Amino acid sequence: MTDLARSTGAASAAFVAVDWGTSSFRSWLMSAAGEAIAESRGGEGILHCIGSGFAPVLRDHLARLGAPDGMPVLICGMAGARQGWREAPYLKTPTRLEALHEGTIRIDAPGDIRILPGIAQARADRPDVMRGEETQLLGVTEPDFTGLVCIPGTHSKWIRIEQGHVIEFSTHMTGELFSVISQHSILAHAVETDGPSAADNEPFREGLAAALAAPSGLTALLFRLRAAQLLGFEQRADGAARLSGLLIGTEIADVLHRHGARPLRLIGAGQLGRLYEAALKAQGFDVIVADAEEASRLGLAKAAIDIWGAQF
Amino acid sequence: MTDLARSTGAASAAFVAVDWGTSSFRSWLMSAAGEAIAESRGGEGILHCIGSGFAPVLRDHLARLGAPDGMPVLICGMAGARQGWREAPYLKTPTRLEALHEGTIRIDAPGDIRILPGIAQARADRPDVMRGEETQLLGVTEPDFTGLVCIPGTHSKWIRIEQGHVIEFSTHMTGELFSVISQHSILAHAVETDGPSAADNEPFREGLAAALAAPSGLTALLFRLRAAQLLGFEQRADGAARLSGLLIGTEIADVLHRHGARPLRLIGAGQLGRLYEAALKAQGFDVIVADAEEASRLGLAKAAIDIWGAQF
Repeated sequence: MTDLARSTGAASAAFVAVDWGTSSFRSWLMSAAGEAIAESRGGEGILHCIGSGFAPVLRDHLARLGAPDGMPVLICGMAGARQGWREAPYLKTPTRLEALHEGTIRIDAPGDIRILPGIAQARADRPDVMRGEETQLLGVTEPDFTGLVCIPGTHSKWIRIEQGHVIEFSTHMTGELFSVISQHSILAHAVETDGPSAADNEPFREGLAAALAAPSGLTALLFRLRAAQLLGFEQRADGAARLSGLLIGTEIADVLHRHGARPLRLIGAGQLGRLYEAALKAQGFDVIVADAEEASRLGLAKAAIDIWGAQF
Repeated sequence: MTDLARSTGAASAAFVAVDWGTSSFRSWLMSAAGEAIAESRGGEGILHCIGSGFAPVLRDHLARLGAPDGMPVLICGMAGARQGWREAPYLKTPTRLEALHEGTIRIDAPGDIRILPGIAQARADRPDVMRGEETQLLGVTEPDFTGLVCIPGTHSKWIRIEQGHVIEFSTHMTGELFSVISQHSILAHAVETDGPSAADNEPFREGLAAALAAPSGLTALLFRLRAAQLLGFEQRADGAARLSGLLIGTEIADVLHRHGARPLRLIGAGQLGRLYEAALKAQGFDVIVADAEEASRLGLAKAAIDIWGAQF
């Protein structure tokens, strides 16, 4: 437990916010104003809990946070998936972010424990799902926001929002493709994955430019990475950065093609977030960056205040 | 050894043609007119030979073919790679196919054993290499051929030929992406790879159409395959065919974008060749299909006759 109250003053606790993902658990003791007073985190994501149960993990963290018995708890993320604690059915696009809390489901247990829903794009031509990101969207947008939100990662998400409504979104397997291609394909010989995998350096920018210039060419650009090394145009040490540039460039080219360069909120973390920021600014996007964890906490706070605010 | 002479009449043997790839060895006893009289094949690709040596493998197959001592041998494929028997340096694009035999290197051994060169596109902006396919190209094109050649596979190759000259080419990692994505990514849950992986059925054609409609969208189309199953739009049993359609469609969309639908020789084998044939015809390509193995043998025969024809 980290006692955040020392820095924020001794605000009194009103609820607990939990971001419960596939492989991580993060919780915060929150004030009625939406400030974090204390936090407790661990590796007990839902993969961990499927065997051992969800309630004991939550109970443990509530104790570490020093949360009083019966304090309301609001959860977002994979805990609400079918294979999670209890399924919180998806809201369907188009949907208003401010109405997210109306889709919470309640856990059948003492106290008031709720899980926020994910959002599904239930269209046969563009099916897609999110769970956890919808809470970050709520956290980083104003009620009348119009523009795009980008959440880079293993499965990058791009969300088009009009006047606070999620209109449509797409998930790009960019990070996962980096991982499987660099580990399991012939490019494993051309990419040093134990080195820094993604620096905003010349090979990264060249990969980005190559993909932006040939948005349909990914299957060929990948082989060219290896051929460039065979023919002595490039070093193996540059392979990871170039591969990263090719994949992120293909993702951005597709989004540019669909949406153009609109006002953009980038929910990033660490080096990957900075790579996307540089790449998106270079393509003319007007980027405002938000921290991923803070976005989740803010979204949980907004929804909690909508649910229980009158009681606080 | 298969004695092909029975069906072709007792033509007398003039040379031996060998297609020596990464994981396979195929050889034919050939007549002066370029007809196969007998064949001998095995799994002794260069990966096998790197440890145990190349000469003994060849000797063994020559004996099985009943080739007389000192008969000329012409080899194409990975045996001429840096890690092969002896490196046959790449010819550089643009290059005339009829001149391929001028790039052979001779093995320092009794008799006359030669290896045909590969072709490199030694351009920093589009580096690419082939080794083995150049011989197939020679086999399936006339000296004045103008058009495209497609060689589908793990690494599909597309070659633009003008008046018998290889002008440029690109290698697409289509088959390998199918393999790593279906085995190692989250889509492993959405694709039954032990089932028929690529049938010209409705899910394949839908995948193809989706990729052709969104040529830059591969990273998102892949995730959508999984989302479609989560949301009940599609069955897991259809995953492999759809994935195959998405990847082949992305490859074809890129080629269409670069070259348009030109006269096309398709060097195919088996089910994959038929899938490409159907997909390419549907996109307006004027397709003539050639068998992959026959293309290699024909190319070897043309080159051998250019080298030794006068002696036969």
